[in-house]
Amino acid sequence: MNEGRSELTARANNKGVDAAVAAARRVIASLLHAGDGSDAEMSEVAERLNAVADYLDEHAPAVRERMVDMWRGEGVTRHDPVTGPENAVAPPLALTGQEDGSIEGVVVLGMPYQGPPGFVHGGISALLLDHTLGVANDWGGPSGMTAELTLRYHRPTPLFEPLTVTGRQVAVDGRKIRAVGTISAGGEVCVSAEGLFVAKRVPRPR
Amino acid sequence: MNEGRSELTARANNKGVDAAVAAARRVIASLLHAGDGSDAEMSEVAERLNAVADYLDEHAPAVRERMVDMWRGEGVTRHDPVTGPENAVAPPLALTGQEDGSIEGVVVLGMPYQGPPGFVHGGISALLLDHTLGVANDWGGPSGMTAELTLRYHRPTPLFEPLTVTGRQVAVDGRKIRAVGTISAGGEVCVSAEGLFVAKRVPRPR
Repeated sequence: MNEGRSELTARANNKGVDAAVAAARRVIASLLHAGDGSDAEMSEVAERLNAVADYLDEHAPAVRERMVDMWRGEGVTRHDPVTGPENAVAPPLALTGQEDGSIEGVVVLGMPYQGPPGFVHGGISALLLDHTLGVANDWGGPSGMTAELTLRYHRPTPLFEPLTVTGRQVAVDGRKIRAVGTISAGGEVCVSAEGLFVAKRVPRPR
Repeated sequence: MNEGRSELTARANNKGVDAAVAAARRVIASLLHAGDGSDAEMSEVAERLNAVADYLDEHAPAVRERMVDMWRGEGVTRHDPVTGPENAVAPPLALTGQEDGSIEGVVVLGMPYQGPPGFVHGGISALLLDHTLGVANDWGGPSGMTAELTLRYHRPTPLFEPLTVTGRQVAVDGRKIRAVGTISAGGEVCVSAEGLFVAKRVPRPR
């Protein structure tokens, strides 16, 4: 098994935009941990963050140009909201292809991903699984866009603990592709998913 | 119809942590718009963001204390990843209860929520709908936790355009609750969802 080839998601760099995005993830979590009960000077924090956004916007390429750039090449995406090292919304989840055709990743989710008290939001589990099933299709055979996704919630998914996310392509019938996946904690399945995908693509911007 | 009472999600304040979170959302989007092709000095940006996180962490309450605080009261949540004004991951979506028992909100999603080129990530649609169905249950009758959620993707959901998100409780049978919802753009349904919920709750931290 080729360890390098089996990395299915972008690896974060320790510099450039990836490092700034990692710092932005810290800011997101710290703001939520602080809340309104903290004695931090929040209007000053807002000013500092707005100044960073202003600075970035002054130097950013046009949206159209950036869209072409981010979709260049055929490799893994760097901007998606699940695995993307350029997207601070992403936890991020890193996925690895296994020899048996399945894919897997481990992630710890903090307070920004909370649904019920102390547990992961059901919609965040859906987000992680939709993406993982898509990547599982890329790894296992033909891939496409989600047509139908069903999630079953077996038990609450804990925050602040390692979660194992898996995906596997299970059937290809013409343009119809089926994949399944799970999120587990401590060896027990918390959420399972099955998805129907259709082998089509939105054209890339050029 | 009482306009005040029909607001089902927290309204953002123009100061305090909400304003800082709004600025953090700008930073998330600006970093993604900039990418690695920008000539912004990214190591300096990372330093500035890490300094903000350090400052917030110095003033933050303990996690346990904060969890008790964020779950105090019986009103709308301020911290969830869909509507929460304290959570920079949230777009945020604001939901309003309608006289007919349904709920509705309009949101424009930018680059951080992208899946296929120029369109919303299927998992982000799932996140919005799971949350909206939960709030629809709160508005329509008894509410609970997601047991099963099925999403159907009818057409790609555009970024950068107003999306109408709806939800409605359709049946209550003992502890089983059913709700449906849609995401539409330009009057056409892009994603529909049906959910089965069970009337139970994770205990709140105290």
